[in-house]
Amino acid sequence: MFDGLKRILVGRPFRTERLKRKPLPPKIALPIFSSSALSSLAYAPDEILLTLAMAGVAATLLSPLVGLAVLAVLLVLVFSYRQSVAAYPSGGGDYDIVRTNLGPRSGTAVAAALLVDFVLTVAVSSTSAAHYVAAVFPALNDSRAVIASLIVAVLVIGNLRGRGKGRWALAIPVYLFVGGMLAMIAVGAVLALTGSLGQAPSAAFEIRPEQEFATGLQGLAGALLILRAFSTGSAALTGIEVPISNVHTLSKPRARNAGRILLAIGLLSGVLTFGTLLLARATGVKVVSDPQASLLLDGQAVGADYVQAPVLTQLAEAVFGGYGLGLVVVAVLTVGVLLMAGNHAFNSFPNLASHLAGDGYLPRQLRTRGDRLGFSNGILSLGLAAIAVIFAFDGDVTILIQLYVLGVFVSFTLSQAGMLRHWSRLLVQVTGRTARASVQRKRLLNLVGLVLSALVLLVVLVTRFTHGAWLAVVGIVLLMAVMESLSRHYRQVDRELAVGEDQEAAALPSRVHALVLVSTVRKPVLRAIAFARASRPSKLEAIMVDVESAKTERTVADWQRLGIPVPITVLASPYRTIADPLIDHIRSIRRESPRDLVVVYIPEYVVGHWWEQLVHNQTALRVKNRLHHEPGVVVASVPWRLLSTTAGTTEESSAH
Amino acid sequence: MFDGLKRILVGRPFRTERLKRKPLPPKIALPIFSSSALSSLAYAPDEILLTLAMAGVAATLLSPLVGLAVLAVLLVLVFSYRQSVAAYPSGGGDYDIVRTNLGPRSGTAVAAALLVDFVLTVAVSSTSAAHYVAAVFPALNDSRAVIASLIVAVLVIGNLRGRGKGRWALAIPVYLFVGGMLAMIAVGAVLALTGSLGQAPSAAFEIRPEQEFATGLQGLAGALLILRAFSTGSAALTGIEVPISNVHTLSKPRARNAGRILLAIGLLSGVLTFGTLLLARATGVKVVSDPQASLLLDGQAVGADYVQAPVLTQLAEAVFGGYGLGLVVVAVLTVGVLLMAGNHAFNSFPNLASHLAGDGYLPRQLRTRGDRLGFSNGILSLGLAAIAVIFAFDGDVTILIQLYVLGVFVSFTLSQAGMLRHWSRLLVQVTGRTARASVQRKRLLNLVGLVLSALVLLVVLVTRFTHGAWLAVVGIVLLMAVMESLSRHYRQVDRELAVGEDQEAAALPSRVHALVLVSTVRKPVLRAIAFARASRPSKLEAIMVDVESAKTERTVADWQRLGIPVPITVLASPYRTIADPLIDHIRSIRRESPRDLVVVYIPEYVVGHWWEQLVHNQTALRVKNRLHHEPGVVVASVPWRLLSTTAGTTEESSAH
Repeated sequence: MFDGLKRILVGRPFRTERLKRKPLPPKIALPIFSSSALSSLAYAPDEILLTLAMAGVAATLLSPLVGLAVLAVLLVLVFSYRQSVAAYPSGGGDYDIVRTNLGPRSGTAVAAALLVDFVLTVAVSSTSAAHYVAAVFPALNDSRAVIASLIVAVLVIGNLRGRGKGRWALAIPVYLFVGGMLAMIAVGAVLALTGSLGQAPSAAFEIRPEQEFATGLQGLAGALLILRAFSTGSAALTGIEVPISNVHTLSKPRARNAGRILLAIGLLSGVLTFGTLLLARATGVKVVSDPQASLLLDGQAVGADYVQAPVLTQLAEAVFGGYGLGLVVVAVLTVGVLLMAGNHAFNSFPNLASHLAGDGYLPRQLRTRGDRLGFSNGILSLGLAAIAVIFAFDGDVTILIQLYVLGVFVSFTLSQAGMLRHWSRLLVQVTGRTARASVQRKRLLNLVGLVLSALVLLVVLVTRFTHGAWLAVVGIVLLMAVMESLSRHYRQVDRELAVGEDQEAAALPSRVHALVLVSTVRKPVLRAIAFARASRPSKLEAIMVDVESAKTERTVADWQRLGIPVPITVLASPYRTIADPLIDHIRSIRRESPRDLVVVYIPEYVVGHWWEQLVHNQTALRVKNRLHHEPGVVVASVPWRLLSTTAGTTEESSAH
Repeated sequence: MFDGLKRILVGRPFRTERLKRKPLPPKIALPIFSSSALSSLAYAPDEILLTLAMAGVAATLLSPLVGLAVLAVLLVLVFSYRQSVAAYPSGGGDYDIVRTNLGPRSGTAVAAALLVDFVLTVAVSSTSAAHYVAAVFPALNDSRAVIASLIVAVLVIGNLRGRGKGRWALAIPVYLFVGGMLAMIAVGAVLALTGSLGQAPSAAFEIRPEQEFATGLQGLAGALLILRAFSTGSAALTGIEVPISNVHTLSKPRARNAGRILLAIGLLSGVLTFGTLLLARATGVKVVSDPQASLLLDGQAVGADYVQAPVLTQLAEAVFGGYGLGLVVVAVLTVGVLLMAGNHAFNSFPNLASHLAGDGYLPRQLRTRGDRLGFSNGILSLGLAAIAVIFAFDGDVTILIQLYVLGVFVSFTLSQAGMLRHWSRLLVQVTGRTARASVQRKRLLNLVGLVLSALVLLVVLVTRFTHGAWLAVVGIVLLMAVMESLSRHYRQVDRELAVGEDQEAAALPSRVHALVLVSTVRKPVLRAIAFARASRPSKLEAIMVDVESAKTERTVADWQRLGIPVPITVLASPYRTIADPLIDHIRSIRRESPRDLVVVYIPEYVVGHWWEQLVHNQTALRVKNRLHHEPGVVVASVPWRLLSTTAGTTEESSAH
């Protein structure tokens, strides 16, 4: 039944050959790799505006400046990642850069941060998509967490099914989104120049500033708030590292294409973010973290039924007029790009998890590909984790973004530090003056990148630590601990099980002493006896543990009557357990002849229904578990399929 | 760890010899067998009074008459059970009487009713005991369900530990209770005769009758209420059947002793119940089902903090004065006898369940004795069921008693019907005139018993069906269904597995084809190979399923390098599963030589921690499960104990 459901949801399995894929040409790679970075336009401007809005309307006018600061970091990161690609043209991403340069422990840290990031990418993208759905259908505003989870479920199923052949399907939504946004900004600019740009729906609101900013954006608190807006706005930078983790999937020349794509993503991201912020300022968009508390209309607080639309749809209304079509188109395009961003995480997480599992840092189950060639366990883990995160934070985009930025900048910072180390090491080997100057220049860029990303990280940590950021820290540290201890465990097992050249483990046991566990004289027992005899052991005895004397006597009598050609040994069991006397017996056998192998044949039923399993085999299970811990014992299950398992098959006749 | 806790709670296991017990002399058997019946004094008078109180104070004055009606039924049942003992002197109880005379299906019904009854005995006794605890410590009144559950837990642990040697420990509380109650009634009677009997604490209250009885106890509703009081009061009859189920434990002459004990229980029960009701009437005890709604003091409803004490402690205060000592002594004695009643159910239920499991009506796990010679699984099941029932009804004694009476009278009625059938059958064989007259007299008595118990059953069903009685009916019917289907299943399996004289199942497979499942070249695999070679199969091959080509190549190269003297077969796995190609291979082997036995050796790890289990053996488990369903395949697990299982043991060296 479960299998049938799985087939309906996921489809028939794919053959391994299907894995081979054509390399991605830049025109497809660009949209696919940029979905993560560009989709942040759906929420990063909102976060900048609503953070500044805490200090009132005047403060929000600073948003383009904050945007410029974010763009500066973006440029530094883009150019430093271009250096990284040039230095590691075969690709590998932050994990490999950090692992190579800073050692395995830092590698584990960056891997943990990346895994957490992918979970948050999915959580943020789907929650944000739910926000856009609610902008079109305000009645759904209270069900955003549920809608986000449904989106995650759709992504899980889609990824379990695996990709179809058309890679354009992933590229088109991104092109459409970029085209739409550029058009909106261009139309808005033209309207503004001609003086006919409309106002956003929220332009008429006043903002009641928080208590501490009653006198405006001043002093240390004001500076900190701008830093916070800057750090939250850094959500716009998430995802720019995607191309360097995927260099190997590009068409040749790979490194060059990757560098170009990076630059294109940086430019697009910068233009769109800055343009959006300018347009939002021009149309008077007001977004706040708690509309009912902070938004005033004619001096009155807005009602409980006011649903705050995201910045992009507000701009759509201002630019394309209040007819609703513009709004719906922009919402659909944005949901499309957010789905692509989430979808991309469903590629990256399982890939990285499989890579880590191969290195022994995660359970082996994450390593192998499922029916449809996706890493099914990784996909399922990511989906479950994302849904858990969404519900844990009740679909609150603002908090999720803090966690997200934190995770992303942990990996950025470590990656920059790794490259810094790389250049410093290189400098020792390089001699020529121009060559040294070039390396030093590159090192400087990474130093700037390191300082900037560490700054963002610090700001998020300091300002948001108690607002949930500690959870991301705990998540990353816990994951690191799990990865380290798993790795220790696997390595220890590897050492323990490695075969030396002396091949000592292959030494042959001298003789086989076979035991058949008997409870009554029934067909499964006779079959176990027959199978044990067929394996021609040096010695064979049937073992009856005397738990109930009446039953034992009956069984022994049946044994004699049927003339079964195997001696039966009755073991006394003063405490009525099966396993203890059996193990005592086995130990005495092994004491007498320590090089003997003891094989215990256990007749077992194969039953048809789960409840039948409850009323059979319980003793066999317990005995098997106990015997597992005895040295030098092999446990052989001789199954007997009850007719109820496959009504109408004739197992008896086919079995011999 | 679990094992250690078990040892602390339950103690070291007992040897089977300890099971032999001396027969019970009547002076010990009487109190042990009567605890169930006599303990009903703790709640049966209360139920009669509070049912009548629905029609106001005047109606409660009828309570001694209702008591007399209950006594009449008691007498009929006592004498008819004496007949039953005489007719079946080897004992056996209602289950055997009904099964013998009315057939297995009715036997199942009575068994189900009895099992439900035992659960309710425990639930009612412990809830009632909690009521007496609350009478002494009123602050605990709201925690009665919790206290009752703790009492059940104590009984479970006590019974898992098993009985000590002193059987007097079970007898003394009952003697003390009977002595105390008789003394209280006697002192009360003397005080009443001298005109100096005090009033009960609740004597000053008025009772506000229910709406429909505003004009007193009249008409059909009044008659029905009296019938209800009578049926609820029949709770006093629960447990009188205990002696006949335990005839075999008595000292000789068994049947005669059982008959005497029955009579003694009947007399004691009658005197105590009737005496209590008279005394309650004389001291003006008022108990109602909802004190806050129905009790008035000077025209005002009693406060929310009024805790209604049970009848027995109210009588203690009236007879021994308000000093509290009498109250405490009576409460302690009553809790004592209730504990003994609950404890007795912990004997009866597991015994009956084991009997039924032996007959194939319940899962086999209920059949065997545990470490301390008690039927541990039965004891645990009873405890869990009782606690579930207590919480399901939130510790409401009144509802529990309805269910209880219903279950008890199902078995009484069936038992009487069974005896009726018994005499009718006997009548066909008996010829002598006086003999026939005697049998006819006996049959008449059972007919009266049948009518009376059926009447009680009918009244409970009609008046309380919607008030929870349906649950008891559903419980009994469900249990019957489970028992019948289990029995069918076990019988079918028995038929299927029975060994005919032709002994066809013992036919020897012609040859053994051994396969060793290989994933990498590590010690556990080499050991599995060594063990497989030691069993000298006709053919031996190592099987490597090619899931990942790099790994496969490495393994095959290692195989050649180490010169392992077993050919390795690589199976292609286009869909990356281990089990499917292996099963295909096995099927092709069996197609070529259908009489061959295929033994699959699977190397397995034995790990130390539960989390290690999660990251090992998952593939082995899945493969084993699949192979289980293949005909003619034996699965042999070759365990390798990782060092972490037993830090410091040297398994490798001792294993060969």
